[in-house]
Amino acid sequence: MIKFLDLQQINLQHHTEIEAKLLQVFQSGWYLMGQELASFEANLSHYIGVKHTIGVANGLDALRLILRAYIELGVMNPGDEILVPSNTYIASILAISDNGLIPVLIEPDIDTYNINLTHIEEKISAKTKGILIVHLYGRVIFSQKLKDLSEKYNLKIIEDNAQAIGAEWNGIKTGNLGHAAGFSFYPGKNLGAIGDAGAVTTNDDTLAATIRALANYGSNQKYLNIYKGLNSRLDEMQAAVLNVKLKYLDHENTLRRKIAKRYISEIKSPEIVVPEYPEHEKEHVWHLFVIRTSDRNALQSYLTDNKIQTLIHYPVAPHKQQAYKEWNELSYPLSEKIHAEVLSLPISPVMDDEQINMIIRTINTF
Amino acid sequence: MIKFLDLQQINLQHHTEIEAKLLQVFQSGWYLMGQELASFEANLSHYIGVKHTIGVANGLDALRLILRAYIELGVMNPGDEILVPSNTYIASILAISDNGLIPVLIEPDIDTYNINLTHIEEKISAKTKGILIVHLYGRVIFSQKLKDLSEKYNLKIIEDNAQAIGAEWNGIKTGNLGHAAGFSFYPGKNLGAIGDAGAVTTNDDTLAATIRALANYGSNQKYLNIYKGLNSRLDEMQAAVLNVKLKYLDHENTLRRKIAKRYISEIKSPEIVVPEYPEHEKEHVWHLFVIRTSDRNALQSYLTDNKIQTLIHYPVAPHKQQAYKEWNELSYPLSEKIHAEVLSLPISPVMDDEQINMIIRTINTF
Ligand SMILES: Cc1ncc(COP(=O)(O)O)c(/C=N/[C@@H]2[C@@H](O)[C@@H](OP(=O)(O)OP(=O)(O)OC[C@H]3O[C@@H](n4cc(C)c(=O)[nH]c4=O)C[C@@H]3O)O[C@H](C)[C@H]2O)c1O
Ligand SMILES: Cc1ncc(COP(=O)(O)O)c(/C=N/[C@@H]2[C@@H](O)[C@@H](OP(=O)(O)OP(=O)(O)OC[C@H]3O[C@@H](n4cc(C)c(=O)[nH]c4=O)C[C@@H]3O)O[C@H](C)[C@H]2O)c1O
Repeated sequence: MIKFLDLQQINLQHHTEIEAKLLQVFQSGWYLMGQELASFEANLSHYIGVKHTIGVANGLDALRLILRAYIELGVMNPGDEILVPSNTYIASILAISDNGLIPVLIEPDIDTYNINLTHIEEKISAKTKGILIVHLYGRVIFSQKLKDLSEKYNLKIIEDNAQAIGAEWNGIKTGNLGHAAGFSFYPGKNLGAIGDAGAVTTNDDTLAATIRALANYGSNQKYLNIYKGLNSRLDEMQAAVLNVKLKYLDHENTLRRKIAKRYISEIKSPEIVVPEYPEHEKEHVWHLFVIRTSDRNALQSYLTDNKIQTLIHYPVAPHKQQAYKEWNELSYPLSEKIHAEVLSLPISPVMDDEQINMIIRTINTF
Repeated sequence: MIKFLDLQQINLQHHTEIEAKLLQVFQSGWYLMGQELASFEANLSHYIGVKHTIGVANGLDALRLILRAYIELGVMNPGDEILVPSNTYIASILAISDNGLIPVLIEPDIDTYNINLTHIEEKISAKTKGILIVHLYGRVIFSQKLKDLSEKYNLKIIEDNAQAIGAEWNGIKTGNLGHAAGFSFYPGKNLGAIGDAGAVTTNDDTLAATIRALANYGSNQKYLNIYKGLNSRLDEMQAAVLNVKLKYLDHENTLRRKIAKRYISEIKSPEIVVPEYPEHEKEHVWHLFVIRTSDRNALQSYLTDNKIQTLIHYPVAPHKQQAYKEWNELSYPLSEKIHAEVLSLPISPVMDDEQINMIIRTINTF
């Protein structure tokens, strides 16, 4: 059986280092807002090339806190609109509506699965205050034109970088392309913790300070609360694990690229659309390797029967979820098509050639 | 130097068991919503005597999620009022305003520091939908009259049980006195994790299911989102630690009671008000041992000079915080007095007689 993602093996690669850290943090008696967090925040800032990293509890909170801070600072107000891809993990959209902001869904580009930047300008209204771009599946979505539009209309660009840590556009890392970015270190991510974890990156001093307080009961000094805040912190334990794993991220992303390259060149079925390998390979970190076929469910069953575990990212489009019943009657045909046809193949730094061969061979005989 | 709380020593008491669990969870490759969480939820339900426990990310989230679920279920609506003590950790109040509900502050009883139940009825309006009671410092606040009032006016009783795990009223544990309760397992709590952690307990099946989904992106089944949810989960790692420590909680609370008893009978300074030892001793788990004196700041400095670390719970009343500037001009004189006069002495299961002697002796020569 080839697992979709063998997290156990991924983490055991570094078990000596991680186990030592877990014991060290436990034995230290200090579990929150200590050295490991400070060190991880510095390391991630350095890696991404930004001024500020704020460790938070998870990826959804990272995005919620960015928007909440913009509201606290008067940059946005409840009722304002935020552009967001219709084709994304629902958390990107939840972060917007949680803040009383209005998500304006934009259809993807069927080739990259990312938001179609050519549709953006027509959706900008007087109420539009930002655009939340999602580097879906690990592929960067960005362009000079987007930057220009954001300046022209005074829009904040918020990156949902849950899936693309380590990717680059024009030598700049995702997480440093817009005004602020949210990261998820959910265990299954390219940089995964051993529990929920997340972070915000930004070069904006005021925003950083606001988020830091908002995530700590609204407090910037013990027992003094300047905002009506939340509790969303990154534990020392998780920060310590992330500190170890961050060192191996680039190497692990390179291993993912190798597998992606093989899948793309060797999967031959005419029924199956494989993703494009980007001209600039750093624009993709292959968090997920997503193929598309009209016979998706049959292909998934066939692979399961052949002991290859796959997942669907995602089976139901956000606008079709009961959570957004106000949108259920709307039509986003490209998103719907994608949600009906995609299938994610196993991809990870611990897969061996034999497993990859076996997956390619099995798919090619579907 | 006597630490306010020697968390390192507290946790190292159980280091063999906890370290084995940390390694086991790490090595298992499964970090969220697995066996440790299920087992902790079952263990806590059994301990408290309730039907449901839902592990969440922290204590503030526990309270937020209870109220959010009541709103989702139509039991409450934004704009409704929730009664809450004016004298509490600000998180109790943040949970209310975060949901668009209106906190109605009620003054404490100067002897117990808990909400004064005799003031409740006069504050109930047509908009009042609940009362959030806080078992502050570890002391139960409850009465048959409160229960009767809640029935008469159809109010939900929400317990903030962050500070009183293990306490009992009439043989019933806190967390099982009202309709739902929020727990914090912040490291410094009587049952502390090694990072942020929390839980909700309730006997209400519908509420439990709603909270469980709301805390998991609004999803009760993978990739299906029925609510606009949050991400607030209790990691396997934290659940594993809590599973170990829960076994020792009653014993540790007994040790706290012993220290409290000594402080109460041996601190003799006429300037210092010590708390009352409750007639039914199970009504207090002594999360904090809080004394009161008009010369609080001098006493704290004196103790610091004598190498005894103390804390103030809390120095600034919630209605005086910048976060609640709309209340800054209001007057809650008892709360203000308490905030100006209280001082928390070291109390914990790892203090030895010599330390306790030394603290008592030092205070008595102030
Ligand atoms: C664009 C975007 N924005 C915001 C977010 C929100 O970030 P978050 O709040 O941090 O979740 C996401 C999250 N995104 C992910 C989302 O993509 C989805 O990811 P998924 O691949 O379906 O995740 P999964 O199936 O639970 O795990 C992947 C594999 O890993 C295995 N596994 C998993 C766990 C937890 C384990 O312990 N051990 C394992 O072996 C099981 C699976 O085979 O669901 C998650 C809950 C979200 O965090 C996102 O994609
Ligand atoms: C009524 C009520 N409702 C809701 C809540 C919200 O729950 P929460 O969201 O889980 O925080 C609280 C939280 N309550 C507490 C609140 O009482 C306050 O507690 P505190 O005693 O001031 O806490 P502290 O000084 O940080 O820690 C106590 C001692 O422990 C030491 N320590 C601490 C840490 C973290 C460590 O790793 N190692 C240590 O050695 C330092 C201190 O000497 O502040 C915390 C952040 C809240 O979680 C509450 O009281």
